Amino acid sequence: MKSPEIQRLIQQLGKLPGLGPRSGRRIALHMLKKRQYVLEPLIRSLQDALDKVTPCPICFNLDTTSPCGICQDPKRDSRQLCVVEDITDLWAFERTHVFKGHYHVLGGVLSAINGIGPKNLNLDTLIERASNPDIQEIVLALNATLDSQTTSYYITDCLKSCDKKISRLAYGIPLGGELDCLDDGTLATAFSERHAF
Amino acid sequence: MKSPEIQRLIQQLGKLPGLGPRSGRRIALHMLKKRQYVLEPLIRSLQDALDKVTPCPICFNLDTTSPCGICQDPKRDSRQLCVVEDITDLWAFERTHVFKGHYHVLGGVLSAINGIGPKNLNLDTLIERASNPDIQEIVLALNATLDSQTTSYYITDCLKSCDKKISRLAYGIPLGGELDCLDDGTLATAFSERHAF
Repeated sequence: MKSPEIQRLIQQLGKLPGLGPRSGRRIALHMLKKRQYVLEPLIRSLQDALDKVTPCPICFNLDTTSPCGICQDPKRDSRQLCVVEDITDLWAFERTHVFKGHYHVLGGVLSAINGIGPKNLNLDTLIERASNPDIQEIVLALNATLDSQTTSYYITDCLKSCDKKISRLAYGIPLGGELDCLDDGTLATAFSERHAF
Repeated sequence: MKSPEIQRLIQQLGKLPGLGPRSGRRIALHMLKKRQYVLEPLIRSLQDALDKVTPCPICFNLDTTSPCGICQDPKRDSRQLCVVEDITDLWAFERTHVFKGHYHVLGGVLSAINGIGPKNLNLDTLIERASNPDIQEIVLALNATLDSQTTSYYITDCLKSCDKKISRLAYGIPLGGELDCLDDGTLATAFSERHAF
């Protein structure tokens, strides 16, 4: 006996990543109860995001300006280019404040099972950007999964002709990690890539 | 380096019940990537809900019609009134299809700690409805927590003058429950309220 409007809202909320029918119901009810403080501001924010946020034509980040804030920022180091799979990874690096160069969002990784080939990724634009004489280093900051590693090797191959320094993230023990809890692969890699103390 | 529009959206999503900053980011990005299939329909649904859904003046259910669909339905048994704490409880009962009467949503329970007294609940309207000669039974379907039970006793007291049959939900072992996993209170109640086989 729920009205179709409420039912549709619950269904759409329940399909968002990490949510289900139960959390969809809970959130819908919360918003309908606090329409002035939750529902109305959220609709405005969503509409704002819909109207203003666009993908950056250079690095494929999402922003309200085009090119995005990072690509436009004169303070960023234009000699370094960090290649990430997804915008969440870009956001994660920005939170660390460790990287001051530019980014390039691939939009995924090569995956034979999911039918994702080089044409489905932002690879052509990466090769074009990499050939810019300003760029000195390209950091491949992809995940440590099999598909991502395959993609890293593929990109390295594509960028050979550019003759730039290509680096990847360090593998090893995560900070705060206990050796006993780590998988064999991480432990073996951390051992074989050990540094002088 | 996230735009304020995206940041505000993530913040608002992260404050919804059951979500946090991480799931807020994940959902915001998912919506911004699938604007046509997720973001636009969701905005329409939220706006629809905001425009059309109102609390029912009789039972305090939420619906697009006023009075709500349940209160208007001539097929529902007007002799039974089921008192629930929240609209989620009403939805839960409706999913079971076991109750065909009318509802009354209290909108909470008495709670000294949270400063919720009788005036903060939809109690006056309940007493008014209960005095209707049509009504024969009032089912108090509140939670089995201490505050809810206190509220149940308070309501029973308020409704004494109406001279109607007042019932409460059965306490016992939940279906599929294993005795070993149950708390002592439930087990003791299930034993003392045992029925003839």
